[in-house]
Amino acid sequence: MIKAGIIGATGYTGSELVRLLYRHPEVDITAITSESRKGEAFSAVHGQFRGLIDHTLQSADDLPSNLDIVFLALPHGVSMEYVEKYEQEGFRIVDLSGDFRLSSPEVYQSWYGKPHTYSQGFGKAVYGLPELHKKAIGEAQLVANPGCYPTSAILGLAPLVHHQLIDQNQIIIDSKSGLTGAGIKANATTHFSNVNDNFKAYALKSHRHTVEIEEQLSGQSTGGITVQFTPHLLPVDRGILSTIYATPLQPISEEQLRKTYVDFYRHQPFVRLCDQPPSLKEVRGSNYCDLFVTYDERTQRIIVVAVIDNLVKGAAGQAVHNMNLMFGLEETTGLKIIPLKP
Amino acid sequence: MIKAGIIGATGYTGSELVRLLYRHPEVDITAITSESRKGEAFSAVHGQFRGLIDHTLQSADDLPSNLDIVFLALPHGVSMEYVEKYEQEGFRIVDLSGDFRLSSPEVYQSWYGKPHTYSQGFGKAVYGLPELHKKAIGEAQLVANPGCYPTSAILGLAPLVHHQLIDQNQIIIDSKSGLTGAGIKANATTHFSNVNDNFKAYALKSHRHTVEIEEQLSGQSTGGITVQFTPHLLPVDRGILSTIYATPLQPISEEQLRKTYVDFYRHQPFVRLCDQPPSLKEVRGSNYCDLFVTYDERTQRIIVVAVIDNLVKGAAGQAVHNMNLMFGLEETTGLKIIPLKP
Amino acid sequence: MIKAGIIGATGYTGSELVRLLYRHPEVDITAITSESRKGEAFSAVHGQFRGLIDHTLQSADDLPSNLDIVFLALPHGVSMEYVEKYEQEGFRIVDLSGDFRLSSPEVYQSWYGKPHTYSQGFGKAVYGLPELHKKAIGEAQLVANPGCYPTSAILGLAPLVHHQLIDQNQIIIDSKSGLTGAGIKANATTHFSNVNDNFKAYALKSHRHTVEIEEQLSGQSTGGITVQFTPHLLPVDRGILSTIYATPLQPISEEQLRKTYVDFYRHQPFVRLCDQPPSLKEVRGSNYCDLFVTYDERTQRIIVVAVIDNLVKGAAGQAVHNMNLMFGLEETTGLKIIPLKP
Amino acid sequence: MIKAGIIGATGYTGSELVRLLYRHPEVDITAITSESRKGEAFSAVHGQFRGLIDHTLQSADDLPSNLDIVFLALPHGVSMEYVEKYEQEGFRIVDLSGDFRLSSPEVYQSWYGKPHTYSQGFGKAVYGLPELHKKAIGEAQLVANPGCYPTSAILGLAPLVHHQLIDQNQIIIDSKSGLTGAGIKANATTHFSNVNDNFKAYALKSHRHTVEIEEQLSGQSTGGITVQFTPHLLPVDRGILSTIYATPLQPISEEQLRKTYVDFYRHQPFVRLCDQPPSLKEVRGSNYCDLFVTYDERTQRIIVVAVIDNLVKGAAGQAVHNMNLMFGLEETTGLKIIPLKP
Repeated sequence: MIKAGIIGATGYTGSELVRLLYRHPEVDITAITSESRKGEAFSAVHGQFRGLIDHTLQSADDLPSNLDIVFLALPHGVSMEYVEKYEQEGFRIVDLSGDFRLSSPEVYQSWYGKPHTYSQGFGKAVYGLPELHKKAIGEAQLVANPGCYPTSAILGLAPLVHHQLIDQNQIIIDSKSGLTGAGIKANATTHFSNVNDNFKAYALKSHRHTVEIEEQLSGQSTGGITVQFTPHLLPVDRGILSTIYATPLQPISEEQLRKTYVDFYRHQPFVRLCDQPPSLKEVRGSNYCDLFVTYDERTQRIIVVAVIDNLVKGAAGQAVHNMNLMFGLEETTGLKIIPLKP
Repeated sequence: MIKAGIIGATGYTGSELVRLLYRHPEVDITAITSESRKGEAFSAVHGQFRGLIDHTLQSADDLPSNLDIVFLALPHGVSMEYVEKYEQEGFRIVDLSGDFRLSSPEVYQSWYGKPHTYSQGFGKAVYGLPELHKKAIGEAQLVANPGCYPTSAILGLAPLVHHQLIDQNQIIIDSKSGLTGAGIKANATTHFSNVNDNFKAYALKSHRHTVEIEEQLSGQSTGGITVQFTPHLLPVDRGILSTIYATPLQPISEEQLRKTYVDFYRHQPFVRLCDQPPSLKEVRGSNYCDLFVTYDERTQRIIVVAVIDNLVKGAAGQAVHNMNLMFGLEETTGLKIIPLKP
Repeated sequence: MIKAGIIGATGYTGSELVRLLYRHPEVDITAITSESRKGEAFSAVHGQFRGLIDHTLQSADDLPSNLDIVFLALPHGVSMEYVEKYEQEGFRIVDLSGDFRLSSPEVYQSWYGKPHTYSQGFGKAVYGLPELHKKAIGEAQLVANPGCYPTSAILGLAPLVHHQLIDQNQIIIDSKSGLTGAGIKANATTHFSNVNDNFKAYALKSHRHTVEIEEQLSGQSTGGITVQFTPHLLPVDRGILSTIYATPLQPISEEQLRKTYVDFYRHQPFVRLCDQPPSLKEVRGSNYCDLFVTYDERTQRIIVVAVIDNLVKGAAGQAVHNMNLMFGLEETTGLKIIPLKP
Repeated sequence: MIKAGIIGATGYTGSELVRLLYRHPEVDITAITSESRKGEAFSAVHGQFRGLIDHTLQSADDLPSNLDIVFLALPHGVSMEYVEKYEQEGFRIVDLSGDFRLSSPEVYQSWYGKPHTYSQGFGKAVYGLPELHKKAIGEAQLVANPGCYPTSAILGLAPLVHHQLIDQNQIIIDSKSGLTGAGIKANATTHFSNVNDNFKAYALKSHRHTVEIEEQLSGQSTGGITVQFTPHLLPVDRGILSTIYATPLQPISEEQLRKTYVDFYRHQPFVRLCDQPPSLKEVRGSNYCDLFVTYDERTQRIIVVAVIDNLVKGAAGQAVHNMNLMFGLEETTGLKIIPLKP
């Protein structure tokens, strides 16, 4: 059994990690931490676990030394300290924050607005998108788990970018996210009456996931990819739907286009290609990324619709997938979950 | 492996049965039927199963003869015909309709407004609420799976009724259900804009579940229980919350009251007693019934709050629980599911 | 024109007062106050007023002396100070807090948990439910605007209590409220993901509106009324639906029952009697209270369903109605609003 | 008083017209029609009007001859027959269907898939977007009220197109609509559990509003505009938010861009320019179109966010605005409505 620690369990990502690891046949949840609720039962924080997971929350500074892996569900800026500390303790690490997703401390500082305190980590971290980096993830000690928006955007665009089929400066990613993406903290953004029966765009031109998408896609091509990324806030709990527009360099048929995606994802168990545009609930609670791709002959533009559950494929599920790869397990272990619809 | 057939899979209950049986380690889903969508893939009807359950839908009249059990997710009135037919084929049966839940064809006709065509079934059917009838369910060929509202109401009241602690004519059950309780059929009741941001009571004085609750509770006592049952429609997908008011015959303390419930449900793995009133999402997607009970000294009234997922504990999950009992499996097999929150 | 001041305009009640007074033909909105957002434009706080109401928010301590009326949309405990102050300035006052709704400082302290600092106010305050106290409201300097739950409960029960038709100790009020009833403050209770697709009961046995309902109903009868009041939180913005159960002292027919209500509310323009149980959206944004009443012969119990918009009839609309009475206007002035559905 | 007839009042548009005309000081609602519910009270169909609008629904074939104007809230394909008929009766007409919005019967047939039976109407109809065609609307007998999506898209783009600031082939309109846009008919699309907590794209590449947008924008420029238009379905009742991407032909500053919009809409009372991206609820129930415009220097792209209430500015409110123009009234008459938020 893999002894796992979940670091920071009061938020949605931590809670979701526990939900997924509870059903994983090869994992023992050895430690769950929270600084703010230390000493309380985990199920006192998340009532749905009542009678099922009653671990006492402990401090992240006081972990058992025999852990095999730690999942860091901490805010960016905080995570980097613990990554450094846990590396020294020899744990394998999946960091779900944004601290090691980018290419350098300088890029980090430019988009996150603060200096990075553990720049050595950048050289070690592997970007944990299994569909693109399976082998490197398997060998990594430190995996930087992708952002939720980037997961949908990169999976939606990777086949086009990889085969250099599109104009690298004409990519528009119009994304819509459920409210859990904004976190468990209570503020005006997350107040029910500001979200319910409502909808808005936010962070135009400036969202941090923009650079993450650009860097990762550039890595699949010959570099230099620029994207227009606009996030929106949906009155739903879970899910991201990204509508992606791209301009082919050469004429392409609908059939060629679909074949490109089928081939690219042939061996990826969590990417499902759809005949119709998918909806959020068709992946809710699961680790699937559902993709629909089509070509508009009238406008000569490619449209991709990518759908994930932001807390699973966009966070905790992808982290477990990464763990499976790191420990040589069958990659779908513990993750064959039917989406919850309705 | 238990070979199971799911009869009637276009609705929510059938879909939910497939979701639960897919993860059940002792079950092989051998047949899924639909008369209206026969010949199509199951996942064409319920997109969330895409790539996971791609069985071709077949006719309920043409089942393989080696099935061990059939789950009937058919409308009441239709189910009775198939119960008769499948009994003759020797299948064990869990009927999720209302056709065999009541005590006699006469009571059925009085509340369902149509004659019953298979009155012999009443003598054979066992009411499938495991917390009350575990032994009989284990031996039954035909289990009548309880209604969703009755599951919440009976579990909320059984300890009080069993110990004859309350006035049998002063029971009020004010229930609120998610919209899936109204079924998958499109009509004015299920139209989004009539439900969203809205709320209403319906079927005052006349809901069919009233008599089901009264008969089952009367069976736990010395008979003669009358309840006031009022259902309401919530703008949520899943879940029933019943707020139950009862008048104790003798003064009772909060402590005695809670102890009565703890003792009554000591060996029931799917009933969780709560220290705070539970919310719907704390059981969503799971087979738990969360109960909160309290005594109001000021008014001398007992208040119980009972919460279930109407599609799981109120339908498909309870059906699987019944199957576990019928086949001598550990009763929680396949049902240890963490509720999906948020 | 009536010169009106709205005191405390960052919350939902203050915003709703501005919405209603803006369309009132006899009112000039002379001052809008907020201590926390003083100096900003009102429309900077509530974007929907952009270009329509751009008053600068001022301090409640610095009002123009020529105001005719002030509406206090302040938290309880804070309101009492300003009531005292504004009385001295000679303004007529509608206080929307709970500070002067109860019968005495002692009762206040017992349910609100803090001493009252302006006990003289109790003798002056008139309870502002126009359907019961129209004449006294017209003459009042200080009107205590009713609570949202009490408005629905009292209007639902007043005809029965007034005619002494029911057992005074067998009243159960099971109420369900939209989230705006919990206020604009961001906290765990108002976080979208705790409310959306969810439902719960809260404040069992102890909600402050219990005593307000009991005192007001007792005033309509010969005293001594006790109610069981249970509030619940709905995943909707606006609206309260109260399902009320009462036991008639004598047999009563459905016809007599309905006639009692029709007669009682014959001259009340904002009470609408319905042939079917009403839903929240049928009153949304309006000042109507929709009532449905029925008698269950089987259980010999009366059931009343009362529906209001908690921010209008349950707060700001009723306040404007009170103002109309205080200034001798036709009582529906500015309030003939079609509910917004869908 | 203007004598108005509302033709087809069982749907959302008809109901909304009644809501708006009820509060219009210069209009008498003389006739309301419905073929399917003829003879019933209007408030029996739309309960929110109970006691306020109790007109008996009559047939569209049997209107009083003294009507001044008729509003046609009929399905496309049906509307054209009545337009022809009512023209002959001399009524002024606002047609809310899509039957006369396009440039010719041929274009109509190509996008609506059926032949047009009243091709003469095309020459007479004026496209009823007041911000662009105020004068012509004032003189028209027949006004073709714009589609909901086009209203948001055209208002969002008109200043850019008018001044030929952008590449005419690089326009992407990613629109998200509330469910009422799908109509009152019950079907799988409008079923609560398919919409609630869900989100999807639909009608990619093929939505009829595409050509309406292209034709209208082309009319503001030198022709030849092509747009990529993708609609999505939001789990909200009302509102459209369009996120629009355009590529400037010349470098432009944020300041120039905003000034272009301010100048273009200086005299348009229902267009509000915002400093922040607006949300749906900030226009709910009102006739406003809120616009936010920004320039992304990094990508050299213009982004516009346009928000309307699809039933008001996108349908009934715009129709009333058109009526005001047709009858020489101040254009905001009856339409100064504060949006309902929350």
